[in-house]
Amino acid sequence: MGEAARKAAEVLREASAERKHAALDAAADAVAQSMPKILEANEQDLQFGRDKGLSDAMTDRLRLDKDRIGAIAEGLRTVGGQPDPIGAVIAEWDRPNGLRIQRVRTPIGVLGVIYESRPNVTADAGALALKSGNAVILRGGSESLHSSAAIHACMVAGLREAGLPEDAIQLVPTRDRAAVSAMLQAQGLIDVIIPRGGKGLVGLVQREARVPVFAHLEGICHVYVDGEAAPEMARRIVVNAKTRRTGICGAAECVLIDEAYGDAEALIAALVAAGVEVRADGDLAKLPGTVTAGADDFGHEFLDMVIAARRVDGVEGAIEHIRRYGSQHTEAIVTANDATAKRFFQGLDSAILLHNASTQFADGGEFGMGAEIGIATGKLHARGPVGAEQLTSFKYLVTGDGTLRP
Amino acid sequence: MGEAARKAAEVLREASAERKHAALDAAADAVAQSMPKILEANEQDLQFGRDKGLSDAMTDRLRLDKDRIGAIAEGLRTVGGQPDPIGAVIAEWDRPNGLRIQRVRTPIGVLGVIYESRPNVTADAGALALKSGNAVILRGGSESLHSSAAIHACMVAGLREAGLPEDAIQLVPTRDRAAVSAMLQAQGLIDVIIPRGGKGLVGLVQREARVPVFAHLEGICHVYVDGEAAPEMARRIVVNAKTRRTGICGAAECVLIDEAYGDAEALIAALVAAGVEVRADGDLAKLPGTVTAGADDFGHEFLDMVIAARRVDGVEGAIEHIRRYGSQHTEAIVTANDATAKRFFQGLDSAILLHNASTQFADGGEFGMGAEIGIATGKLHARGPVGAEQLTSFKYLVTGDGTLRP
Repeated sequence: MGEAARKAAEVLREASAERKHAALDAAADAVAQSMPKILEANEQDLQFGRDKGLSDAMTDRLRLDKDRIGAIAEGLRTVGGQPDPIGAVIAEWDRPNGLRIQRVRTPIGVLGVIYESRPNVTADAGALALKSGNAVILRGGSESLHSSAAIHACMVAGLREAGLPEDAIQLVPTRDRAAVSAMLQAQGLIDVIIPRGGKGLVGLVQREARVPVFAHLEGICHVYVDGEAAPEMARRIVVNAKTRRTGICGAAECVLIDEAYGDAEALIAALVAAGVEVRADGDLAKLPGTVTAGADDFGHEFLDMVIAARRVDGVEGAIEHIRRYGSQHTEAIVTANDATAKRFFQGLDSAILLHNASTQFADGGEFGMGAEIGIATGKLHARGPVGAEQLTSFKYLVTGDGTLRP
Repeated sequence: MGEAARKAAEVLREASAERKHAALDAAADAVAQSMPKILEANEQDLQFGRDKGLSDAMTDRLRLDKDRIGAIAEGLRTVGGQPDPIGAVIAEWDRPNGLRIQRVRTPIGVLGVIYESRPNVTADAGALALKSGNAVILRGGSESLHSSAAIHACMVAGLREAGLPEDAIQLVPTRDRAAVSAMLQAQGLIDVIIPRGGKGLVGLVQREARVPVFAHLEGICHVYVDGEAAPEMARRIVVNAKTRRTGICGAAECVLIDEAYGDAEALIAALVAAGVEVRADGDLAKLPGTVTAGADDFGHEFLDMVIAARRVDGVEGAIEHIRRYGSQHTEAIVTANDATAKRFFQGLDSAILLHNASTQFADGGEFGMGAEIGIATGKLHARGPVGAEQLTSFKYLVTGDGTLRP
């Protein structure tokens, strides 16, 4: 599969924007037309999951219905309609000797995407890879094998219709775990691995991969409420950051409240009223509705209606806490003082820092990237939401006029 | 050392441009003032090299004199005077919900530089790391231990004078090879390894590193002379690309001549007249002064006054040859036809492609980067000449007004 992907990548690298767009539109049509087939395949997977005793949450992720399949088709069209990143001139300059230097966007080559049992990732990841001119090898969760295969068939139909190589988007056709290991070791065949899933999967990939990885292990996101925060704004941001969706990596897991903030009681009360279990320490633990935090509650990714809460000594105290307990994913400050926000932005090195906005904005769609293949917290190449543009590399094109180096 | 570097990196990340500039100027002063000490240390290394039976070429790389030491000081001042990359806003945009998103340049963290016995790399790599806000661990060749230590002492003096942590630039103080292995495995302590040296060193690093690597293994650079090339320009570019300096990675190792190019004899004669051994195949091998190429001569990095030569069938033939034998480093086309040059630029994926210019321009200084820490041929993060800017990462700073995600 790796070698087939390499060959497809050579063709994709030069494929026109129109052809890639056409393939995604055709794939969207195929998904819409194949709804009965996809539902049938999904039913097989659900049966397999029931036999295996899959949890309700996992079953829900696995389940497809007409709306979800419609959303998959729509997602393909959205990515298809976005600007094509390949060939764009990122920078250009002239040298005193007359050389003109251009830095031009190119595909990376071959991506490997390893994910759990969300069949829609088959379409999302395939679409972003194609848009960015990369071939991709997809390895979905074993519970979603049939659903993913049915969606994958639609992607291949789209490629075929646009005259692009079918091997541009390949799906590992087996539940065998050895396939994952092979992907992680495939230096020279796969250029980068993108794991999508829980900490177990991402940790495994980060430990074992010999190929570079774009990922985040955890999203331990903090909201710091400064002494100069407007109370109503603070309450609304904290409640939104925690409760809008608790299972996503951008959900807040800890609220840090400035000693100088006078409205802590109402802030905690708003969380409690929203149904959040507040695990607090110090004087906050005396507030109604809170429970006393254990040592493990700070730096913990709950992904649930639970939040850790602590008093800190101003923005410096918040920075110190986040440096110690954070995962360099996303943190927010609420303050009316721009200088304090600037200090927060400067003192921390998370992929995303927000001022007076909810951590739930940590998302490629919300950043205007149209879609994302995941969020990365590493420092190299990709960081934050990874969209089509971040799935590219570049080359230098230099034009002279018989220019020699003295 | 890794932990000390991490701590220093935390301070460097927030160090002002002025302070970093001051440290580099002070280091340059220290180098100029320490000339006798550096020369004495270098004499110790040369003695060690003589006892070890070092080759003339390696001895020459190791040797320092007043001019070379002056150039080291000058290099420190040049890097110091360049624009500071950290904090620059690379991109910014607004979202319909009022969020303003900025992408801002930050340091990577801790670099590891492993090099052979060129003591000047101690200063170059230290300076570029500091400029880009990164801490660095330097591991020079064992033959240059005393010279590197003397130069390193000047870098530390500069840091001290500017009030920056001395651990920002550390030199491994031992000839023990285990230090290299430890650096290659130092995940979580070193963010990226940059090897500078021959194929043996780079190959070892690429095979064994568990930390990401910015490097190129080989510079198998090609010049394609198109049928529509102006003969005089073609001759001058080919001779410059091969002979200006043969030992650098941007030196041409193979000339590909279009079947339709009518002036091949004069082109080959110019190379022969310049003292180049031309290893040719096909009809080119019948030209005076050539020797018949063996199968291994294509895709070979000679780093010497030797070049492989072959006829190809137009630009497509050249692309095919380079895809098969190249190392994705640097290739040039000579042609008066812009459409042909465009096809060459599109069909190849080397880090640097040139039209009507010499491959010897593959160099950070020539690109206007002021200095380079090396040239990378990988697809991720850094590519082509790696200057201070490419030693950076980024973070997103997002400003709202109590903005919630619906």
